[in-house]
Amino acid sequence: MNVYGNNIARLIDELNRLPGIGAKSAARLAFHIINMEESRVQALAMAISQAKATVRYCQECCTITDISPCGICSGTKRDNTTIMVVEDSRDLAAYERIKEYRGLYHVLQGAISPMAGITPEHLRIKELLARLTGDVQEVIIATNPNVEGEATAIYLSRLLKDTVRVTRIAHGVPIGGDLEHVDDITLARALEGRREI
Amino acid sequence: MNVYGNNIARLIDELNRLPGIGAKSAARLAFHIINMEESRVQALAMAISQAKATVRYCQECCTITDISPCGICSGTKRDNTTIMVVEDSRDLAAYERIKEYRGLYHVLQGAISPMAGITPEHLRIKELLARLTGDVQEVIIATNPNVEGEATAIYLSRLLKDTVRVTRIAHGVPIGGDLEHVDDITLARALEGRREI
Repeated sequence: MNVYGNNIARLIDELNRLPGIGAKSAARLAFHIINMEESRVQALAMAISQAKATVRYCQECCTITDISPCGICSGTKRDNTTIMVVEDSRDLAAYERIKEYRGLYHVLQGAISPMAGITPEHLRIKELLARLTGDVQEVIIATNPNVEGEATAIYLSRLLKDTVRVTRIAHGVPIGGDLEHVDDITLARALEGRREI
Repeated sequence: MNVYGNNIARLIDELNRLPGIGAKSAARLAFHIINMEESRVQALAMAISQAKATVRYCQECCTITDISPCGICSGTKRDNTTIMVVEDSRDLAAYERIKEYRGLYHVLQGAISPMAGITPEHLRIKELLARLTGDVQEVIIATNPNVEGEATAIYLSRLLKDTVRVTRIAHGVPIGGDLEHVDDITLARALEGRREI
């Protein structure tokens, strides 16, 4: 890469270390960056440094944030009788996006995966238990619909169901698209979870 | 995006402005970055600032570099009787990668495109003419094999052919893969360009 000079080569190399950015994308991005306006380049470099410098986990829900407690936990308009348990902060963001859920969240920071050596002790479960005081009436488990997410859901359900009502988000066929393209397990779960209309 | 706090939201936003990085990739990259080691984050931010601060164009071949003349133009082992004309610095890098070409380059910084309003005056053609002094015996035109690249090749060939030998890289079927999947124009050009074996 030294045909570009050391500083550009170094930028390509640093970008290439990021996930999902191969050698060609890294070069393309590097050329884009060095052609951007100076102020935009500084904004990007600064955003990287600052986000890293100020990142922390919310003392309540364990989401990634730069203020603790986070905006949701410190919000006065949230329903504090319900906690939705998700694997990571992006799942929380996905549910926030639909603007239908007004309760609180709890971010486990992962899912149980014996294959990857992730046991319940690696997750923010202690912190969840500490929050199940007087007000909380329901814990909605919204871990991912895959093996690890299901294992985590079952584990949590057994752990919590004597203390509080535990529910799981529904599995079924996604809205839009074609039954024909839905995988077999989802079809089976959709049938199993059928409801009166 | 404010569920993540302002600094993380700002980082996601800055990443999202880069080409080919949508909202989801930007969030994924941002989370990766804030989970990287501090030293790696600083290396990335620094690489961005430094590459931008030191970038320039080589005074000879007009490639993007941080030293001028660039490593190739100032190299003592290059054949200075041949100049390969490419559209941009990444094309130069592609030819350097194969380690077969030992001549010099000239980077046009684009190709003629009446649709996009790019005329010969927008390209580094004056700088190319200035280099066609005593030593140069051949100019190899390696602009892209598309409409703009071909138009540029024809323009340059007419402009230069009284001064110097002008050649064009061969068009034909790429090595590997299947004739069946090669487009019609390439098949026609490959036939047209056939050689004795």
